[in-house]
Amino acid sequence: MSLSTLRNASIKSSASISYALARIFSYPSTSPARKMSTDIPGPIEVTDEVLFANAHPSMSHMSPDFALVFGDCIRMTRQLLYSKDAQPFLIAGSGTLGWDQVSANLVEPGENALVLHSGYFADSFADCLQTYGANVDQIKAEIGGAVKVADIESALQAKKYKIVTVTHVDTSTAVLVSPDTLVVVDAVCSVASEEIQMDAWGIDVVMTASQKGLGTPPGLSIVIASQKAVQVFQNRSTPVTTYYGSWKKWLPIMKAYENNSAAYFATPPVNLIYAFHASLTQIMKGSVSLEQRFKLHQEVSRRIKKAAEEIGFRGVPLSEDVQANGMSALYYPDGFTASDIVPRLLKKDVVVAGGLHASIKDKYFRIGHMGASVVDPSRGDVDKLISAVKESLAEAKASKQ
Amino acid sequence: MSLSTLRNASIKSSASISYALARIFSYPSTSPARKMSTDIPGPIEVTDEVLFANAHPSMSHMSPDFALVFGDCIRMTRQLLYSKDAQPFLIAGSGTLGWDQVSANLVEPGENALVLHSGYFADSFADCLQTYGANVDQIKAEIGGAVKVADIESALQAKKYKIVTVTHVDTSTAVLVSPDTLVVVDAVCSVASEEIQMDAWGIDVVMTASQKGLGTPPGLSIVIASQKAVQVFQNRSTPVTTYYGSWKKWLPIMKAYENNSAAYFATPPVNLIYAFHASLTQIMKGSVSLEQRFKLHQEVSRRIKKAAEEIGFRGVPLSEDVQANGMSALYYPDGFTASDIVPRLLKKDVVVAGGLHASIKDKYFRIGHMGASVVDPSRGDVDKLISAVKESLAEAKASKQ
Repeated sequence: MSLSTLRNASIKSSASISYALARIFSYPSTSPARKMSTDIPGPIEVTDEVLFANAHPSMSHMSPDFALVFGDCIRMTRQLLYSKDAQPFLIAGSGTLGWDQVSANLVEPGENALVLHSGYFADSFADCLQTYGANVDQIKAEIGGAVKVADIESALQAKKYKIVTVTHVDTSTAVLVSPDTLVVVDAVCSVASEEIQMDAWGIDVVMTASQKGLGTPPGLSIVIASQKAVQVFQNRSTPVTTYYGSWKKWLPIMKAYENNSAAYFATPPVNLIYAFHASLTQIMKGSVSLEQRFKLHQEVSRRIKKAAEEIGFRGVPLSEDVQANGMSALYYPDGFTASDIVPRLLKKDVVVAGGLHASIKDKYFRIGHMGASVVDPSRGDVDKLISAVKESLAEAKASKQ
Repeated sequence: MSLSTLRNASIKSSASISYALARIFSYPSTSPARKMSTDIPGPIEVTDEVLFANAHPSMSHMSPDFALVFGDCIRMTRQLLYSKDAQPFLIAGSGTLGWDQVSANLVEPGENALVLHSGYFADSFADCLQTYGANVDQIKAEIGGAVKVADIESALQAKKYKIVTVTHVDTSTAVLVSPDTLVVVDAVCSVASEEIQMDAWGIDVVMTASQKGLGTPPGLSIVIASQKAVQVFQNRSTPVTTYYGSWKKWLPIMKAYENNSAAYFATPPVNLIYAFHASLTQIMKGSVSLEQRFKLHQEVSRRIKKAAEEIGFRGVPLSEDVQANGMSALYYPDGFTASDIVPRLLKKDVVVAGGLHASIKDKYFRIGHMGASVVDPSRGDVDKLISAVKESLAEAKASKQ
């Protein structure tokens, strides 16, 4: 994987926008033809309309025009999660800022948090909760599995927890066993690629980021809090220990913008809000319904996993009911490693992501299949990905003979 | 100022990019002709090259190509501040996140901070410092003035301060009187429009944001710490009380990217980094030298202030040596208010900002003149602004007769 190969590959640009722009500007890092397909679990491929909105000319964050757009984003985000009255917080930051928001606003120092650990990110969330003074217990799942319901039940019966955090959306246990505990779902990799019904399923906080299923460039932390969570926040007895992420600061701002009126605490990422608006509009009001979108993610996910398994890759999830529909984590076939497969994929202009889970880091890789690549088959992203995986393995096999 | 006027006005787009794009796409909120001039103190007008870079197709934040671009941004940011070895932190967030970084990383609970108060933002910085447990003293300047050197000297002699925060760049007093105190400059409105020599002037932290003199859309918190400040951070005896803003997390990431190698703590705002790179390249390697850029900001600032004062506006700063070169704060002439002037400016496609300083909020307005509008006279932004201010006042006078 030489640097120059990668550089040459990666300066090829997206769809028609780059071609059009290349004819107009002579910006150095663009070549006219799109060939790369970014099949990582975020930043995912974004549509031309979203890229274009991200190039929106400078606008005042205090202008009525921007306020309407921001207001729309807040409303559509709530609808996307099938909620009547949950409170979205759209704040400039990485998805990680969502952990800070939950930890600093909903847990007071010395209170208990239960982290259901099903992978890499649970450790970090636990680290974040501890930074803000929470006492954290973790229940760990086996690799590729989910935490057992019986284990969650006994933990919740044994101790009073202020929040329980899950990366899956199966929240029923916590809701039934410990009704006062807030259920926090780290849904970075599932919002807009999997159905999440906040109200019906009793979820109190959903956290995500712009660059995954929401099909927008990275830089926006998206947190949606139920009114129950907002109430718990408002009933704190100790002050919030963050400034930038404090809901005390942001709640009036989000309410103002939802009323299509601008308010100021910190300058929002104006262009990214335009881009998010363009993407939400496609998701919520486009030709593919939300239900159809989830179904397509499921179908494409099954198709990719099946195609890979047929030629010797093996899914990291232990069973189909715990696997995600927006990405695939695949063990390399026996005798093959990342260096056999990843550079070959790259030569075919397919960019994938390496492993993250510490104990199996080098044994698997990750493919993202969310958003435009899934919903718009005319892009050919999925077909190209599957062919590239097949060809790369065949070439790797041939090279070993 | 009717809503529809504003909406119609604000959907007119920037320079040639919108015109070109409008011919290619049919994105709803763009009309072919650029007329608006965003003369607010941020988000400022950005160049076509920067807008275009912000529409960069999806890239992996872990790719070598992106790492080079990010590395370049870190290096150029340091050069811009005339520093040999200061450590830039480029993190997704509003400028406000810089206050959290300083408060959480450099001050330990119970330590003293001295805030030199010369306007609205000092109160917020003090609030932020207190959120993280600092004991804050403030020295307040009279409106439009600077804090008196003698007052700073006696404060620094009377008590041991961990940091002193200033919004001006005249830092010599603190450096001489209390050499262990870290000097923190809130330079949101001055980086790249005023000369700041970190090393030579003994500044320990400079904080800014992307959407001011740096000519990039909002969404990037930019903090540059001297090695002395990094050392103070590393010698803390208590843990850092933020997660997302923790330099413990970000320092290895920034070092990796500066070595042109990707590393992960939280997904960076990839597109915005491309945009920032395009703007820094124009600032640091463009046809206008950095020195010339500062000189042009000074000249344009004087020209605007003079033109406004000649017809009855009065500058908020009490003397020329305390006035900023990137913006003008102007009292309305006697007998006139915001409603006489601002809507008339808007009808001429000039967007300005209202007052912020609580005790004089309704008596003045703010004009931003940073970046492209100042450096590229062919845009005609400054001429248009001056004519619009003159005409608006003349019309307001006529309407009262």
